[in-house]
Amino acid sequence: MSSERLIYLPLGGAGEIGMNCYVYGYGKPGKERLIVVDLGVTFPDMDSTPGVDLILPDITWLKENRNRIEAVFITHAHEDHVGAVGHLFGDLGVKIYARAFTSNIARHKLAEYGIEGGAVQTVGKWPETVTTGPLTVGFLPISHSIPESSALVIDSPDGRIIHTGDFKLDTTPLVGEAWDPELWADVSKDGVKALICDSTNVFSRTAGRSEAIVTPAVEKLVAEADQMVVATTFASNVARVKSLAEAGAKAGRSVCLLGRAMRRMIEASNETGVLKGFPPVIGPEDVVKLPRDNVMLIVTGSQGERRAASAQLARGKFNGITLKEGDLFLFSSKIIPGNERGVIRVMNQFSENGVDIVDDSDGDYHVSGHANRPDLETMQDVVNPQIVVPMHGEHRHLREHVKMSESKGRQGVLAINGMMIDLSGNKPKVVEYIETGRTYLDGSVQIGALDGVVRDRIRMALNGHVLVTVIMDEDDEALGEPWCEVMGLPTQGRSHAPLTDILEADLAQFMGRAGDKTLTDDNKLENELRKLTRQSCLKEIGKKPEVTVVISRLS
Amino acid sequence: MSSERLIYLPLGGAGEIGMNCYVYGYGKPGKERLIVVDLGVTFPDMDSTPGVDLILPDITWLKENRNRIEAVFITHAHEDHVGAVGHLFGDLGVKIYARAFTSNIARHKLAEYGIEGGAVQTVGKWPETVTTGPLTVGFLPISHSIPESSALVIDSPDGRIIHTGDFKLDTTPLVGEAWDPELWADVSKDGVKALICDSTNVFSRTAGRSEAIVTPAVEKLVAEADQMVVATTFASNVARVKSLAEAGAKAGRSVCLLGRAMRRMIEASNETGVLKGFPPVIGPEDVVKLPRDNVMLIVTGSQGERRAASAQLARGKFNGITLKEGDLFLFSSKIIPGNERGVIRVMNQFSENGVDIVDDSDGDYHVSGHANRPDLETMQDVVNPQIVVPMHGEHRHLREHVKMSESKGRQGVLAINGMMIDLSGNKPKVVEYIETGRTYLDGSVQIGALDGVVRDRIRMALNGHVLVTVIMDEDDEALGEPWCEVMGLPTQGRSHAPLTDILEADLAQFMGRAGDKTLTDDNKLENELRKLTRQSCLKEIGKKPEVTVVISRLS
Repeated sequence: MSSERLIYLPLGGAGEIGMNCYVYGYGKPGKERLIVVDLGVTFPDMDSTPGVDLILPDITWLKENRNRIEAVFITHAHEDHVGAVGHLFGDLGVKIYARAFTSNIARHKLAEYGIEGGAVQTVGKWPETVTTGPLTVGFLPISHSIPESSALVIDSPDGRIIHTGDFKLDTTPLVGEAWDPELWADVSKDGVKALICDSTNVFSRTAGRSEAIVTPAVEKLVAEADQMVVATTFASNVARVKSLAEAGAKAGRSVCLLGRAMRRMIEASNETGVLKGFPPVIGPEDVVKLPRDNVMLIVTGSQGERRAASAQLARGKFNGITLKEGDLFLFSSKIIPGNERGVIRVMNQFSENGVDIVDDSDGDYHVSGHANRPDLETMQDVVNPQIVVPMHGEHRHLREHVKMSESKGRQGVLAINGMMIDLSGNKPKVVEYIETGRTYLDGSVQIGALDGVVRDRIRMALNGHVLVTVIMDEDDEALGEPWCEVMGLPTQGRSHAPLTDILEADLAQFMGRAGDKTLTDDNKLENELRKLTRQSCLKEIGKKPEVTVVISRLS
Repeated sequence: MSSERLIYLPLGGAGEIGMNCYVYGYGKPGKERLIVVDLGVTFPDMDSTPGVDLILPDITWLKENRNRIEAVFITHAHEDHVGAVGHLFGDLGVKIYARAFTSNIARHKLAEYGIEGGAVQTVGKWPETVTTGPLTVGFLPISHSIPESSALVIDSPDGRIIHTGDFKLDTTPLVGEAWDPELWADVSKDGVKALICDSTNVFSRTAGRSEAIVTPAVEKLVAEADQMVVATTFASNVARVKSLAEAGAKAGRSVCLLGRAMRRMIEASNETGVLKGFPPVIGPEDVVKLPRDNVMLIVTGSQGERRAASAQLARGKFNGITLKEGDLFLFSSKIIPGNERGVIRVMNQFSENGVDIVDDSDGDYHVSGHANRPDLETMQDVVNPQIVVPMHGEHRHLREHVKMSESKGRQGVLAINGMMIDLSGNKPKVVEYIETGRTYLDGSVQIGALDGVVRDRIRMALNGHVLVTVIMDEDDEALGEPWCEVMGLPTQGRSHAPLTDILEADLAQFMGRAGDKTLTDDNKLENELRKLTRQSCLKEIGKKPEVTVVISRLS
């Protein structure tokens, strides 16, 4: 038996939906040559990551093993797969391989960090392959909600792995390559060791629906509208954007794209030739010159993002355009869990302006980009892998996917972020636990999720912040009385006097009684002042704030 | 024509789902005698109200017109209708009328504020009425997801109003009174001036489903389970709690209720006689003595609330009980928008412990408590009101409900919080705009939503907080150098030196160059130091923090 082994190690995306980053390797234990699949991001929220700009996978392990990394492969251009290339490229410094459309997007991201485009190498679709160390990798086309999404066929001395990336089984995807079961069967015919598989929709029990079903509903809606029509969808869903634009053109409307991401995606699609026959578009400056019923806007902001075009239109105006009573706004999208409040806010703002809203609650105007449970079963039937390793899912998705695989008589492996799995031999096993986590991009700084920075922000948000200043003279006696400032706290409580007055009186009293042992010891004094401030606040306003004490000694 | 008028004024609940508070009045303009319908709360969230404990309607207008208020009527015991009685009773001091179950809940809330139970008067169902000033009010039974939910029949010299409260048209509600169209037709037969109507489910196009449909699905699920079964639902949905308990008992399981709200609701139901034949329950201390397959727990926390029983079980243990591999957890509930992340967190924690989760995604284990669009149409057909005023909905719901009413040839009125509507005469009209809003219960203090307290918390959470201390001596010269402390900010940025060192150096440099005009003027000095701190941070860490400057003068 060989002393080499074939490993799989998720660093992001296994136990969460988002921030995909997977590692494969082959070689002697601890000396495997590695490839990285995807460098994605996930998005912050006020609940757990206030003030954070973007969340990246913690790639400490990759940095420590940088000299073992052969290359990065990107399956497709969604932010949760490609979003971190700009931020993390500098730490890895290896070549990035992707198909043309994905390369185009990746190069733009690198350019923002001043990295030249040659770092990204464009690879054609299967049967073209790239050999890098002991692994040979090919991009196998599969349908998804973005052009040129691809599975990776990873060949190692220990056999073939198929990493599906994100996918659905769509035979009429409108833009890009259709699901081709013959091609997939052919690729799999000599045996597939492991299928590393998207789990997003494992709880959806009916077969997935094609992108093509959206077209007639959208066309009917647009044709019947009698004022301005505005539609939003994910900018990267180029097929949908095209369907929307065509529905507009068909109804005799001029089409205008609003929002940076929307224009960027169509530009990338045009530059790489994945999009043909997109209707001519006009600029926002021309929109205002046309009758309202001659216009169709396609805009960013399907998730209610505050800065996106839809939210700005809802608040009043975007690029000089204002929506009015009788206009129609279509959400050709679903709400990603957690974004409900933002989307509902936008809907109500439109309602206040008399704009009619249509969303996908009846299932007519959106289809998912991910394989449902029956499709996942079809995938297993076609590929017939020895092992199924679910990825791209929260814990509950991965667990259900493993159970489903086992119920079909296959080996399923529940591997979450940080679990290094040895796929060699007949029974996959966990051989190591790697410390993983999240890195926050905060302003221009990368901070660790456990650094305490965000914890302190959450505490200030929940509890408010009191600042206590005392000045001690050369004889270690208080010079004047303690001074308090509060931020994020009520100005007065039960005694109806200013809270700062109450606090200052309590603290002054304490300083008056405090002994030398306390007054000469900064730590002790600080702790006592903090404790007393918290107690006073609890009594006065019913909550214990965060307290910062500044002791200035003139000595 | 009479100089008296009949008014309707929503102070909460019209333009939002939650925090219901409506006012009706009759009399000469500005001198109408008033009744208040419902005193509800809504719940804070980290996005917009971090640290807040509860959100109450701003009743400034009611306080200003306190001597005109005759009474408060509570339609039912959901928190968004009765939750504020304890907090606001002291400001109004008038009698509260409600049916027995609601009274029981309201009295407990008042007791927490030391208010004796006589403040709440129990009223029997229609045809019993209460006459208070020029208005006569009766509680007309209607089905909902809590016992004894009632519409109010409000008779004024200007005609009859029906205020539906929350409702559904359920002829088999399992607990409490069924929808009785004959009774409602009889009440309406002499003409109804205005129907003030629940709008929650106006976008749901199919008729609502009865509580009874849940029973068989739950029974089957529980019967087939082979380890412990745990179910969560809204504690106030007493019918559901009973169905769950009966399914457990039928499967030979002992039933245990976990969570304060769950026990409180069942207690209130038993005390008021609305619940009969509830299976015997055991305490948590007995659960651990029984085989796992002999137990059924019914627990609080269907919305993933961190402190509720379900979240605590998901994290490990609650009341000595731990869930294990193979146990079954049923969400017999829907997710209220905004709570998705919390519920998903709980689901994944259970998944990590091997607990199987069943939720309502296939629609088998939960039904809504609100009337769907066809039911709203039925309601209008039965009551045949002159005017329909939608309430209990966000703006989009109210607007849709008005459109629906108008499409049926009725007068619809879109009235949001603060709009006083004159319902006298043939055409309702807005006669006044009252300032309304939200009051935050924060610790033990009530603060105004616009006081800036919460705004400051959000800013600290997003931007971090820097404290700058400078001491000025008797000659208005800086004594030592400025001192900085940071909270919620990275410890270092681009120059890889401690952020506080960088800031202190920049500030010291500024102090060195600052002229007397700046150094002697606290405001000027504070502004300059703040500006400089923000600029330095932007350069160093890419974000502009909140800054508090404390200048101590020894003079």
